[in-house]
Amino acid sequence: MNPNKKRILIVGGVAGGATCAARARRLCETCDIVVFERGQHVSFANCGLPYFVGDVIESEAKLLVASPDLFEHRFNIEVHTETEVTRIDRQARTIEVRDLKTGTYREEAYDALVLATGAQPIRPPLPGIDLPGIYVLRNIPDSRKIKAATAQASRALIVGGGFIGLEMAENLVALGLDVTLLELADQVLPPLDAEMAGYAAERLRANGVELRLGESAVSFEQHPERGLILHTSKGATLNTDLVILGIGVRPEATLAREAGLELGELGGIRVDPYMRTNDPAIWAVGDVVEVKNRVTGQWQLVPLAGPANRQGRVAATAIIHDFSCGEKEALPPLAFDGVLGTAVCEVFGLTVACTGASEKLLKRLSMDFEKVYLHPGHHSSYFPGAKPIHIKLLFSKTDNKILGAQAVGEKDVTRPIDVIATALMQGATIFDLENLELCYAPQFGAAKDPVNVAGMLAGNHQRGDFPLANWDELETTPALLVDVRSADEYAGGHVPAAQNLPLESLRDRIHEFPTDRDIWLICGVGQRAYYAYRLLAQNGLRVKVLSGGMKTYSARRRATEASG
Amino acid sequence: MNPNKKRILIVGGVAGGATCAARARRLCETCDIVVFERGQHVSFANCGLPYFVGDVIESEAKLLVASPDLFEHRFNIEVHTETEVTRIDRQARTIEVRDLKTGTYREEAYDALVLATGAQPIRPPLPGIDLPGIYVLRNIPDSRKIKAATAQASRALIVGGGFIGLEMAENLVALGLDVTLLELADQVLPPLDAEMAGYAAERLRANGVELRLGESAVSFEQHPERGLILHTSKGATLNTDLVILGIGVRPEATLAREAGLELGELGGIRVDPYMRTNDPAIWAVGDVVEVKNRVTGQWQLVPLAGPANRQGRVAATAIIHDFSCGEKEALPPLAFDGVLGTAVCEVFGLTVACTGASEKLLKRLSMDFEKVYLHPGHHSSYFPGAKPIHIKLLFSKTDNKILGAQAVGEKDVTRPIDVIATALMQGATIFDLENLELCYAPQFGAAKDPVNVAGMLAGNHQRGDFPLANWDELETTPALLVDVRSADEYAGGHVPAAQNLPLESLRDRIHEFPTDRDIWLICGVGQRAYYAYRLLAQNGLRVKVLSGGMKTYSARRRATEASG
Ligand SMILES: Cc1cc2nc3c(=O)[nH]c(=O)nc-3n(C[C@H](O)[C@H](O)[C@H](O)COP(=O)(O)OP(=O)(O)OC[C@H]3O[C@@H](n4cnc5c(N)ncnc54)[C@H](O)[C@@H]3O)c2cc1C
Ligand SMILES: Cc1cc2nc3c(=O)[nH]c(=O)nc-3n(C[C@H](O)[C@H](O)[C@H](O)COP(=O)(O)OP(=O)(O)OC[C@H]3O[C@@H](n4cnc5c(N)ncnc54)[C@H](O)[C@@H]3O)c2cc1C
Ligand SMILES: CC(C)(COP(=O)(O)OP(=O)(O)OC[C@H]1O[C@@H](n2cnc3c(N)ncnc32)[C@H](O)[C@@H]1OP(=O)(O)O)[C@@H](O)C(=O)NCCC(=O)NCCS
Ligand SMILES: CC(C)(COP(=O)(O)OP(=O)(O)OC[C@H]1O[C@@H](n2cnc3c(N)ncnc32)[C@H](O)[C@@H]1OP(=O)(O)O)[C@@H](O)C(=O)NCCC(=O)NCCS
Repeated sequence: MNPNKKRILIVGGVAGGATCAARARRLCETCDIVVFERGQHVSFANCGLPYFVGDVIESEAKLLVASPDLFEHRFNIEVHTETEVTRIDRQARTIEVRDLKTGTYREEAYDALVLATGAQPIRPPLPGIDLPGIYVLRNIPDSRKIKAATAQASRALIVGGGFIGLEMAENLVALGLDVTLLELADQVLPPLDAEMAGYAAERLRANGVELRLGESAVSFEQHPERGLILHTSKGATLNTDLVILGIGVRPEATLAREAGLELGELGGIRVDPYMRTNDPAIWAVGDVVEVKNRVTGQWQLVPLAGPANRQGRVAATAIIHDFSCGEKEALPPLAFDGVLGTAVCEVFGLTVACTGASEKLLKRLSMDFEKVYLHPGHHSSYFPGAKPIHIKLLFSKTDNKILGAQAVGEKDVTRPIDVIATALMQGATIFDLENLELCYAPQFGAAKDPVNVAGMLAGNHQRGDFPLANWDELETTPALLVDVRSADEYAGGHVPAAQNLPLESLRDRIHEFPTDRDIWLICGVGQRAYYAYRLLAQNGLRVKVLSGGMKTYSARRRATEASG
Repeated sequence: MNPNKKRILIVGGVAGGATCAARARRLCETCDIVVFERGQHVSFANCGLPYFVGDVIESEAKLLVASPDLFEHRFNIEVHTETEVTRIDRQARTIEVRDLKTGTYREEAYDALVLATGAQPIRPPLPGIDLPGIYVLRNIPDSRKIKAATAQASRALIVGGGFIGLEMAENLVALGLDVTLLELADQVLPPLDAEMAGYAAERLRANGVELRLGESAVSFEQHPERGLILHTSKGATLNTDLVILGIGVRPEATLAREAGLELGELGGIRVDPYMRTNDPAIWAVGDVVEVKNRVTGQWQLVPLAGPANRQGRVAATAIIHDFSCGEKEALPPLAFDGVLGTAVCEVFGLTVACTGASEKLLKRLSMDFEKVYLHPGHHSSYFPGAKPIHIKLLFSKTDNKILGAQAVGEKDVTRPIDVIATALMQGATIFDLENLELCYAPQFGAAKDPVNVAGMLAGNHQRGDFPLANWDELETTPALLVDVRSADEYAGGHVPAAQNLPLESLRDRIHEFPTDRDIWLICGVGQRAYYAYRLLAQNGLRVKVLSGGMKTYSARRRATEASG
């Protein structure tokens, strides 16, 4: 080893680690850069694994974004696969490394060490959890095993209704399996609120998935003839050929813990905005670290590829900056300033996306917030093919800042969420959303884009022009419920206690309204109720609107029933 | 007329005017609100007209977003169609109105007057311009005439390669016509730069449109047997059955001019951020006003529906605010803070979108800028079906602010442009783009989203890590041109003067490079050239990168050839 060369050792060679290695080489031609990867592959597309199982991605080769060979020849980076890092000696600045092919140990010295060890799928300590036929999905060998198992199987049971659980459900259905999905919570997709996640639940059921909410796995046993038996918390006994555990991951922080690095309460490594741990020679990136949520200010785990990639880039930059002693004074030019939790998932043609905080999270933290719902088309309604996007926008009542957004629909759902995430990242208010100037042609958006309209609703509320009734109190409110849709629409289904007074007739029938009672207005999506509100309120009545109208009412009801 | 009621008169009942009327009613139940519309329809979807001609939108009824009847019953707004406003008496606060059905004139008094008169298609004073068979497209009667004409026609000639010209080309081809498109400039789509617009030009040609760039119409005459003859600036004689003029619009500001309202140099009405003209009782919105560009600070015409709608809403709010004398001190709660010029157009399956300033505009204004090109997939390449998006990002070298962006591709093109428009609106820098946290799953975006990568390239440049060679000097530079792609790729086509030295071999062949000469690097899209740059620069060589690589080279070459 050339003593003039700085040595960067990286543990873990996929999203965070591989990016960190490549970036470090771009910034420094002379460093030694070595990657240690326990598994057989580096730089693979974890996120593609469900689609590889489902044959949407046809060849394993497609998943290999970069090979050890490419690392060597393009980047002059040493990659050791099937090599596990087993210990860190912080004093000596060395790591202990085990070659898994030979079983031999060796030591490697570092100037900078990067922990990009990712996360491990949770395997709860339930009776029978280690039986054959129970799988997790984290890497290519996992996906091979599941693929092999599906070839023999006709039934699959997925435990956990998060992103990976849902993607697996879709892919296993595509392979012709009967799929049951068990989720302990009373909704799928935990980052979303129940009424928004409900659209996905419905979509799963419509595609033949047996969705069991509020029910968890209690124990597994081998079936005497074929497959497995799962016992659930509701006392049910389910037979299946294979089980996929998709109940989340926990940071792979063993190395860090044993080395005495600071961990957070959630078990992730604590880092500063340059991804440096409390040991100045050790950095950590990806699923293994805790990150600060930009909206709530809380530490959080966000095991997603975008943050892992950006963090790898930040850490590499900080390390090289640290090596160039001349510049010690200045801060590294890149930092990681926390997360919003932007995420997306597609399930049977339905896209579900979110950014920022959910309502339940804001409630849990007792943060001040208000919310609006809307159901615009993904493009102008006069152009054929418009599909609804169901949007929920959360914002602060005190400073008008955006707090979060969720959207569900068949088309163009990431666009509004990405726009709102961008605004949120810039600290924008809902008034800023009203004014955004976005693309519009008949096939794209609208002259008043869905994001503009979301801002308009929130802005109207904040200006006192759109007082909102609380959906949670709909069943118990003493308010008069008035449905302002047409008589036909009303006849087709309505909120039980609601009376019908169509919008167009209100000006003539204003004397029929009580002046001494609260009036709550409902319509299809909230727009006509808002129009009615404006007209009634200016006539001195005490009126509020149920934001999102019957569409949100139905979504909420379905979500409640599903969990009931 | 009730003397206690304020009267708002609105001239023009489509995007800006209709929105203004509806919003004013929501804010004020007691005002008189009257809309005067010269044409037969209010609230129609102008933007859908090309698709109505092309039978994509099948019925005229679809185009009618709201009817006079709906205005009356839902909004209590009086609508007079086929009624032209012919004069404003600012002193008396009255307008002269002509009923086009009866020819009679009357006067109407106002407290607030809104001019939402839109724009008129330009009909250049060329010989023969008024011959039958030469059409413009602005309203429903126009589209009916064109539809009727296409039924008899087999050839069409479009003059003007802007958004409407291109949409018409697509729709007329879909109807089976042979279409020729004449454009005076050496590119289509004037808001874009030539090399980006070139993708659209190619797409037009690939779909059978005869595109004649750098050529204009000089005169028209009747063909002795059938149709028309058009003489062009290049001396060509073209036969056709019908001509569509799509060479732009001019503000319909006659009323305002005759009333002595302040106009700008571009012929639009000058307004303040509340859309008020220099007469405190008169507001103006939509295509008829000039707006300030947020990037350049220049007055500009932006005849688009989004701004018109938002301006209508702002004006209504300001007027009602003005009426409620109690609040005179405070500013109206909504303002229109200028435009970015965000726009989009689809042509034969290719989406072309832009926001902010173009390179040619920045050059014309001698503004400081730099640019990067990239060609990422619209989603991860390992997931089947990724389509390239060609992106150009313009930014300030002095303060790192985003100045503009253009994108072209088949899928998901509005998403990055809307994200960048949002960032631009918030005054974000390119560093902010690097850090955005956007949706990512295999089918959506990428772990390093195209927008992140655009920010990374620009950020690298600004940090001094990615010096850019100037494409314009490629033919003349004394620099050594090195193509770092593989030998196979190089053999498939390359920049004439470029030598081939594949990236993977550079570390071994570094001694072959001259240390006393500039070296410009080129590859497929710019990424490998950047990698090569990092490695060569750190070895003391004088290196620059051609951003966008061969993809941008080809796009530029095609754009030049097309115009040549
Ligand atoms: C099935 C699936 C689907 C996903 N879909 C998405 C998606 O759609 N969108 C999204 O944003 N994210 C998705 N993710 C999450 C994303 O893949 C992760 O957030 C990302 O890969 C984290 O990167 P990382 O570098 O921290 O960890 P990893 O990519 O997991 O890499 C860590 C590596 O470290 C190795 N390692 C651990 N300990 C040691 C050791 N002691 N010695 C040597 N090597 C070690 C591991 O073997 C592992 O390969 C998905 C993940 C999975 C599993
Ligand atoms: C074919 C076509 C396609 C388009 N596509 C798009 C697109 O994809 N995206 C986009 O953003 N924009 C598009 N636009 C532009 C968009 O339609 C306009 O920007 C928008 O309609 C402007 O609104 P406005 O209210 O200012 O004017 P208009 O909508 O034109 O309304 C003005 C009205 O005023 C009336 N009027 C004028 N003078 C008088 C008078 N003296 N008395 C009474 N009435 C009068 C006119 O008859 C007219 O109906 C398109 C336009 C056309 C024509
Ligand atoms: C393959 C891998 C090692 C590449 O890492 P990388 O080189 O940092 O990332 P990319 O290939 O996206 O390239 C980004 C780099 O190229 C540059 N670049 C990208 N496009 C460019 C272009 N057109 N012109 C110039 N430079 C470009 C970027 O600026 C960036 O360099 P920088 O970090 O020095 O600024 C890493 O992405 C990886 O392992 N991916 C698979 C694992 C994974 O992410 N899994 C989870 C998702 S499924
Ligand atoms: C039809 C037309 C008169 C309607 O005008 P409008 O009522 O201002 O506009 P919209 O129908 O988009 O509704 C927007 C209003 O409803 C409110 N709204 C929309 N969705 C809502 C919901 N789900 N819940 C509550 N309120 C809602 C908005 O806040 C806004 O009200 P505000 O301005 O008081 O804040 C006008 O859009 C028009 O003429 N369009 C056709 C012409 C045109 O735009 N052409 C160019 C494009 S092709």
